Amino acid sequence: MQRALSVTRERFADWYQAVVREADMAETSPVRGAMVIKPWGYGVWEQVQAELDRRIKATGHENCYFPLFIPLSFIAKEAEHVEGFAKEMAVVTHHRLKNIDGKLQPDPAAKLEEPLVVRPTSETIIGDAFSRWVKSHRDLPLLINQWANVVRWEMRPRLFLRTTEFLWQEGHTAHATAEEAVEETRRMLEVYRTFAEEVLALPVIAGEKPENERFPGAVNTWSIEAMMQDGKALQAGTSHFLGTHFAEAQNIRFQNDAGAMEYCNTTSWGVSTRLIGGVIMTHGDDDGLRLPPAIAPRQVVVVPMLRDKPEDADVLKYCEVLVEALSKCTAFGQPLRVLLDTRKTKSAEKRWNWVRRGAPLIVEIGPRDAAAGNVTYMRRDDLRDGDKVKSIAKARVDFLEGAVQLLAEIQHGLFAEAKARLDTNIRNDITDWAELESHFAGNDEEFKGWVRVSWSRPTGEGLEAVDEKLKALKLTIRNAPLDQPAEFFPCIFTGKPGVEEILIGRAY
Amino acid sequence: MQRALSVTRERFADWYQAVVREADMAETSPVRGAMVIKPWGYGVWEQVQAELDRRIKATGHENCYFPLFIPLSFIAKEAEHVEGFAKEMAVVTHHRLKNIDGKLQPDPAAKLEEPLVVRPTSETIIGDAFSRWVKSHRDLPLLINQWANVVRWEMRPRLFLRTTEFLWQEGHTAHATAEEAVEETRRMLEVYRTFAEEVLALPVIAGEKPENERFPGAVNTWSIEAMMQDGKALQAGTSHFLGTHFAEAQNIRFQNDAGAMEYCNTTSWGVSTRLIGGVIMTHGDDDGLRLPPAIAPRQVVVVPMLRDKPEDADVLKYCEVLVEALSKCTAFGQPLRVLLDTRKTKSAEKRWNWVRRGAPLIVEIGPRDAAAGNVTYMRRDDLRDGDKVKSIAKARVDFLEGAVQLLAEIQHGLFAEAKARLDTNIRNDITDWAELESHFAGNDEEFKGWVRVSWSRPTGEGLEAVDEKLKALKLTIRNAPLDQPAEFFPCIFTGKPGVEEILIGRAY
Repeated sequence: MQRALSVTRERFADWYQAVVREADMAETSPVRGAMVIKPWGYGVWEQVQAELDRRIKATGHENCYFPLFIPLSFIAKEAEHVEGFAKEMAVVTHHRLKNIDGKLQPDPAAKLEEPLVVRPTSETIIGDAFSRWVKSHRDLPLLINQWANVVRWEMRPRLFLRTTEFLWQEGHTAHATAEEAVEETRRMLEVYRTFAEEVLALPVIAGEKPENERFPGAVNTWSIEAMMQDGKALQAGTSHFLGTHFAEAQNIRFQNDAGAMEYCNTTSWGVSTRLIGGVIMTHGDDDGLRLPPAIAPRQVVVVPMLRDKPEDADVLKYCEVLVEALSKCTAFGQPLRVLLDTRKTKSAEKRWNWVRRGAPLIVEIGPRDAAAGNVTYMRRDDLRDGDKVKSIAKARVDFLEGAVQLLAEIQHGLFAEAKARLDTNIRNDITDWAELESHFAGNDEEFKGWVRVSWSRPTGEGLEAVDEKLKALKLTIRNAPLDQPAEFFPCIFTGKPGVEEILIGRAY
Repeated sequence: MQRALSVTRERFADWYQAVVREADMAETSPVRGAMVIKPWGYGVWEQVQAELDRRIKATGHENCYFPLFIPLSFIAKEAEHVEGFAKEMAVVTHHRLKNIDGKLQPDPAAKLEEPLVVRPTSETIIGDAFSRWVKSHRDLPLLINQWANVVRWEMRPRLFLRTTEFLWQEGHTAHATAEEAVEETRRMLEVYRTFAEEVLALPVIAGEKPENERFPGAVNTWSIEAMMQDGKALQAGTSHFLGTHFAEAQNIRFQNDAGAMEYCNTTSWGVSTRLIGGVIMTHGDDDGLRLPPAIAPRQVVVVPMLRDKPEDADVLKYCEVLVEALSKCTAFGQPLRVLLDTRKTKSAEKRWNWVRRGAPLIVEIGPRDAAAGNVTYMRRDDLRDGDKVKSIAKARVDFLEGAVQLLAEIQHGLFAEAKARLDTNIRNDITDWAELESHFAGNDEEFKGWVRVSWSRPTGEGLEAVDEKLKALKLTIRNAPLDQPAEFFPCIFTGKPGVEEILIGRAY
């Protein structure tokens, strides 16, 4: 069968790269590990930003902007934080270049007294501002969010999934009590969960990370985990309860009702351009990307079938009127996003370009459609009948009336498909280690899904032993789902009584 | 008279700092020259972004994202560009920190082979992508925009006006011919002009920069110049025709109709968070900021006058209903932005806080308003009658009916006030140098405005001499306005026949 991509999902890693490239999402740049996000890819990010920003603001947060550079001494203040991030930071050491011996280089006379780190995350620099902004309990809670670029040096970069520079939002909040801060952490986890499911059509499991997978400096870290089509997990968002660790390091204190000074409890939470990688690996097929309509930069693309003939003018006119009528519709609470593709390339090329890019509805209008008042379209989520592409013809009036409903159906369909995959690929019948080992044995590119097992929640050296055991099978604990049963099997690692269920799988 | 600020515009530089601080717009950070943009300041930037982004997209541009880091060798490729920017760039030399002798420092083992520059602007890194994206004339024009942070090391930083890191948009386009590229450059200049005037209420003069004020590497640079309340100019946006300079440095070529390879003509254009400084210095008064409603994060703020009494509940309920009704209105093509201020501080404190922040309409509701179905409000653009604050009472239904119109009046009023200042403070009757010298003599903090004079447009050494002469008076040529007369006076510098009128003034 003729496919729009030269590689299928059987070779998943190659397929992923092909989709990113062929769907015009992003490309590598001459700067190692940093990507160029192309218009179609950035368009998806703009939709993600717009809708998530609405939800972050609706929960009472305000946006700010903090410096890109962080003094080295700030990073050094929180011990665990240093350990976690020091190994992968870009360091600015000079503030001027100079032509020396005919070669442009950092000017030795412009060496900084204190090196600056390019933010890998902003707890320390935002904490410094919080220490000035918070004085009394009346200033709390302090609820801030920032949209920004961050840099973490990556040795094995992969477009969207792991890049040296990426775009994200980072929420940072300060509270009077640990209870309120934990409540905030969980509230934002829930914002992420519903956003992922409702907008990205990405079913996820929300839960708490084990101690060894916590954010450096956090008391607790929660995550949402999504299952990719190769059965691996993608951590799609995290929310951290930081206790008073950063407040103590940055001196964020407030005067309580009794007049005494107390440290605040703080939180942080973020999602990044990595989500786009998750959307690709969840919804893509062997013809390219399939975008959930809620985040598609264009939800309907209209391709006029022009043939350099006099009737072209009628076709174009008919398309323009159609596009105008569609633009007046409302889908997912926003004006419908529709494009009339007038590029000077062949119609067939355009069709396959939009198939690869994953536009939800691709409309093709020829002279006969225009004359008969018809609309011929393809649903990207249901493109083929066997080998054949399914073109559906409808009266213009019926298409217009049903377009928004169609988009909603596509959105729900993509979610349902991914949800079924998630639900049927978490084994919860494995109760001993040998069984788990044999489940994950063999080619580690093979589809394995996840297993959900009971454990005794060991800590310290006990947890290290578990981690080692899992690492040998290239496995990690993804999280302990929020939704826990009343009873447990014995711990799969120690044989002790189980106290919690955890998800185990391979991950990105 | 009691004012909301402790300093008046008589001491303009101090006043500016006070407004930035007291209006909760921004603050300095521990990183020299980098600012923290606070929620109210960032809220203004969000409005600027949203409306300018719509206009940039409406003219056919798409957003992308390019790497923050630029290899040193890229910067070195365009000779004038190096000269212009090499002196003020942050340089990343290491990608890891290490604890050496108990001190965290750049790890010598992680020194980069080629230093990376933090983008001061992105012509070179975007040009590199363009060289891959452009193959044939069918790929042209290529119309791209980016919203990003950039870094230019500043020795004398000033919040919003001149900061080491700032936020901006940078448009980058490639065209088949010089004519089309110039047309694009001028089109975007016009987008900036209309945006400044219609949205920021900032009257500007659009014109071409003299040779010595061009962007490093540009063939022509155009700017919009606004007049601040101290008579100085603020360059509020620039648009550059780059000819084939960057195309040659980055090898951006296309195959023309005849099958031959030709260099593209490119353009770039940008505006930044500096615009916010311009808004403050244009519209602020001795009580603080006055925000044009089109960019106010909240256009109407409702303050319930609570007194810890039983009738508080009625007042709150009345305010909530009012806020809900206002939220359903449309102002400047968007849902009206209204806030119910329920902070636990005194009503008087709230009033003065919103006055300083410049909220266009401040509504105060007490028990008597609630009982009578009235609304009492202040117009921030017309706050006082002599010493007294003007509180206007209206029936609720009338206020609701007129609110959008009121906001439009405030927007127009602020523009008209600034336009009158600009128009009456450009002297065009000065025809010889001695006269110009005496006009600008004396205290250079005094209000001088601009002068518009004829010149012979000298180049090279002739222009250098002019530049020196002006520098001695702390003056610069702002631009040669687009709108030129048919005849000219003799050149004020050389006595030769005039060929063009230029604007001269002090500037930020």
